[in-house]
Amino acid sequence: MMKVLKIGGSILTDKTQTAFARIEEIDRISREIARCSSDLILIHGAGSYGHVHAEKYGLTERFDPYGLLVTHTSVVQLNKMIVDALSEAGADPMPVHPFQCTVLRDGRIDRMEIAPVTEMIKRGLLPVLHGDVAMDVSRGAGIVSGDQLITYLARTFKADIVGLGCDVDGVICEGRCLDKVTLSDLERIDPGTGKGVDVTGGMKGKLMELLDLAEYGIESVIFNAGKPGLIEKVLTGEQVGTVVGMP
Amino acid sequence: MMKVLKIGGSILTDKTQTAFARIEEIDRISREIARCSSDLILIHGAGSYGHVHAEKYGLTERFDPYGLLVTHTSVVQLNKMIVDALSEAGADPMPVHPFQCTVLRDGRIDRMEIAPVTEMIKRGLLPVLHGDVAMDVSRGAGIVSGDQLITYLARTFKADIVGLGCDVDGVICEGRCLDKVTLSDLERIDPGTGKGVDVTGGMKGKLMELLDLAEYGIESVIFNAGKPGLIEKVLTGEQVGTVVGMP
Repeated sequence: MMKVLKIGGSILTDKTQTAFARIEEIDRISREIARCSSDLILIHGAGSYGHVHAEKYGLTERFDPYGLLVTHTSVVQLNKMIVDALSEAGADPMPVHPFQCTVLRDGRIDRMEIAPVTEMIKRGLLPVLHGDVAMDVSRGAGIVSGDQLITYLARTFKADIVGLGCDVDGVICEGRCLDKVTLSDLERIDPGTGKGVDVTGGMKGKLMELLDLAEYGIESVIFNAGKPGLIEKVLTGEQVGTVVGMP
Repeated sequence: MMKVLKIGGSILTDKTQTAFARIEEIDRISREIARCSSDLILIHGAGSYGHVHAEKYGLTERFDPYGLLVTHTSVVQLNKMIVDALSEAGADPMPVHPFQCTVLRDGRIDRMEIAPVTEMIKRGLLPVLHGDVAMDVSRGAGIVSGDQLITYLARTFKADIVGLGCDVDGVICEGRCLDKVTLSDLERIDPGTGKGVDVTGGMKGKLMELLDLAEYGIESVIFNAGKPGLIEKVLTGEQVGTVVGMP
């Protein structure tokens, strides 16, 4: 059972502050993941480690080498904390920075070397990717969001389970958490769930990525990773949160 | 003029101590490189940041996930110091960790995603690679030495200038630094120039790599990067140290 799990930056960091990690949440989530870390690709958001720098240096608008380096260095710092916590929790995590293996075209993944990730999975290791910067053949450089990585990796590895853990229970519509969302539901969804700085588009952006994935035939689930125990449920296929699927 | 430069770990670190960087040498070398950093791929050795861990966990003999992570983390730490020093010196360095973009087969590079490096060069950035660990399809994982990276990248990018900066003046034979070395000279070379721990084979290993490159039609030069000013000479094509070439 191949699994792709993303944990949002809003869970792992305080997005209203620069480079502020929620250490206790990182430790808890790492313990939950370590209990079911085989055949798993983990992706984490950049949270306040990436978005603040990316915005400061205008990385989505202009090519700024120093901003690129600073933003990458910052997300790598968060990645190291998470990898260390996972290792401490008993998993065999390995950092995989998209900047070193991915090239974008017009802001979308154009090519990505996944052979190291494939080998890691084969050997029982846990590859840990994250939202990052990457070179872009059209624009110099850009941002590869964790959400874009989910869909790319879920398709490439033909994932059986795809989970997106964020800080809300799922997709909220008129105050209620939906059991399932399809493309036709998209217009009536409340996009106002993001807090603080998020240059990659909040819940609507996430949904667009996952609906693309659903069209490709892979269902996913949006759930609240801030609630203890839900990660394990998602990774063992229990119904939790909102399923993003075909009608 | 495409250039590939490797600076040996023995120059950047004290190989007799664990994770001991020579900060002043890193700063000096960074200033020298920053003066001629266009169309350049920089590779640095792991020095006492990698070899000690690789030996402790027996990475060349067995698959040890924790040892793999610790060794990688250690060389990344050295890479960050060097990237920071290069940025401070005015270059636009970008870290490129082989672990994330390379897969070995029986200890040799089987595939490596070079598109990010290509884009960096096009945009005037300075990719900074290093000796690292990597997944190995035959053995689980192994070591990709800086010396192996030189030949792989010099061939792939059809380098015009290839320099290997170490802590001796060049290839020493009977107390004298040779102007040029070819394959037929190999037997009479003094291998006793390495100090401390080096799991990647000392001068003889370096020479084997560079003689392979010479057979492919690319000459290289082994020189003393510990002597101020020589890096610039090598990168501008002046004769320094020992040329490794065809007879």
